[in-house]
Amino acid sequence: MRLVTFQSNSTNEPKAGIVLGDRVAALTAFGPFPETLLELIRQGPAQCQRLRQAAAVAPAGSPHLEDVTLLAPIPRPTKNIICLGLNYLAHADESARATGAEVELPEYPIIFTKAPTSVNDPYADIIFDPKLTEKLDWEVELGVIVGITGKGVSPERALEHVFGYTVINDVSARDLQRRHSQFFLGKSLDGACPMGPWIVTADEIPDPQNLKLRTYVNDVMKQNGSTADQIFSVAETISVLSRGMTLEAGDVIATGTPEGVGFARIPPEYLRDGDVVTCEIEGIGRIQNRVVAA
Amino acid sequence: MRLVTFQSNSTNEPKAGIVLGDRVAALTAFGPFPETLLELIRQGPAQCQRLRQAAAVAPAGSPHLEDVTLLAPIPRPTKNIICLGLNYLAHADESARATGAEVELPEYPIIFTKAPTSVNDPYADIIFDPKLTEKLDWEVELGVIVGITGKGVSPERALEHVFGYTVINDVSARDLQRRHSQFFLGKSLDGACPMGPWIVTADEIPDPQNLKLRTYVNDVMKQNGSTADQIFSVAETISVLSRGMTLEAGDVIATGTPEGVGFARIPPEYLRDGDVVTCEIEGIGRIQNRVVAA
Repeated sequence: MRLVTFQSNSTNEPKAGIVLGDRVAALTAFGPFPETLLELIRQGPAQCQRLRQAAAVAPAGSPHLEDVTLLAPIPRPTKNIICLGLNYLAHADESARATGAEVELPEYPIIFTKAPTSVNDPYADIIFDPKLTEKLDWEVELGVIVGITGKGVSPERALEHVFGYTVINDVSARDLQRRHSQFFLGKSLDGACPMGPWIVTADEIPDPQNLKLRTYVNDVMKQNGSTADQIFSVAETISVLSRGMTLEAGDVIATGTPEGVGFARIPPEYLRDGDVVTCEIEGIGRIQNRVVAA
Repeated sequence: MRLVTFQSNSTNEPKAGIVLGDRVAALTAFGPFPETLLELIRQGPAQCQRLRQAAAVAPAGSPHLEDVTLLAPIPRPTKNIICLGLNYLAHADESARATGAEVELPEYPIIFTKAPTSVNDPYADIIFDPKLTEKLDWEVELGVIVGITGKGVSPERALEHVFGYTVINDVSARDLQRRHSQFFLGKSLDGACPMGPWIVTADEIPDPQNLKLRTYVNDVMKQNGSTADQIFSVAETISVLSRGMTLEAGDVIATGTPEGVGFARIPPEYLRDGDVVTCEIEGIGRIQNRVVAA
């Protein structure tokens, strides 16, 4: 299933929906299903299975996909987005080169967070203050939505805890990221976490370690990687995170970015007013955001 | 006001309350006030002022403070706790010495987060897995509760955005903190953020930069500092955080710890099964948690 949060017009409340062909239908059209994806996720796998069976055909009159506004599938996560740093070999390498550091492959995942206020819609503007950052960068990432709350999850069982996958652009203010030493603030500007356009449920992604992911800036390809090159797989990541910290249904994990980010280019490239940045993952979808200097 | 979240017995729902003398009364005893402190905070300063006027005397029959269980004032923040690292001169110094690094005073605040699942009650056990961490450490910190949502808040107006203050123990698994390079995971074990015992509203703390804060482990004083020694004041911190990231009513900021933490001691000291760790801030209160190896 491709599950969305959408507005059929700007005055309507956002609703959880499902994409069926070229149409979008509210989950509530199929029975007593919840109004938000977060609630659906929290109701557990059996409810999700009931939805799968009930939602086969869009009811007559369902709007076309292009006639609705898609929002981030989970517009307001209940905690920060959990993010991996340097989780692709070649990106760890380019980052070390760009900062003049030794290439050190992380023996343990590097984990930081993005504020939930940074969440942005899949086709909305990324509005930034050029007085605050001059080094806004892109990072396409496979987003993992946790489906089952758990602690001490083994790598072998970890993928059972995944509800689904989405596309995330982990927009990063490199100057702030450096300046504040820990990554959080430079990763947490309002609007710096576009995601979507939907959650593809895990049953449709049998192998999350074999997905191509790409970034384009103004139609020029900048990143072109594969989750096959992740240092820590989705399963390992879930296992490591949950060792001493309860992972909860609805948590969003951004699993790191491949090589080709702006700051590591020669010369460095950053996002500017008017740029259009597109992130896509094969088998999941594509998000596209215009960068606007406010 | 000293505002609490409490249970009068273990089967009752937690309720927002106020401490009046040696008694606790539910806010709802004074009129149409909300059931949670988070909701009270979100209703804004005028509602808080109404509560101040209405809640002068505990109604007859209100339980004694010692007969209720105090929970964390905000048991479940709606995002990660925002934390400052190395925000006291002497602590930055001891940390550099302990890790063999150069002493570098941060020119910008170092900011990381703790998962909301780490929140713990003011007198509850801190349960940890000795197979996961052997280096559990203490950090007494002044906790700031944001009262008014804002962005681009000037240092001059920043304290107007503070709802109140609380005591936080930023319990830190030093081995995980190092191993994962970014601080998040080592700071986010379940139970690693005891806080409380209440929120003291900002009107009772005219100067947050002149508060003594102390940690005791088994009654031996380990930390004895003053917020006068903070490198970035509460006002500066709020201003820096809110430059590009909306700070929201109900956000919790832990403003860093003074010198005297365990890992920087010679020899290093860590929390062990059965230890009792007490954190107190003058004018606010004291929290006390037993450490339990699970």
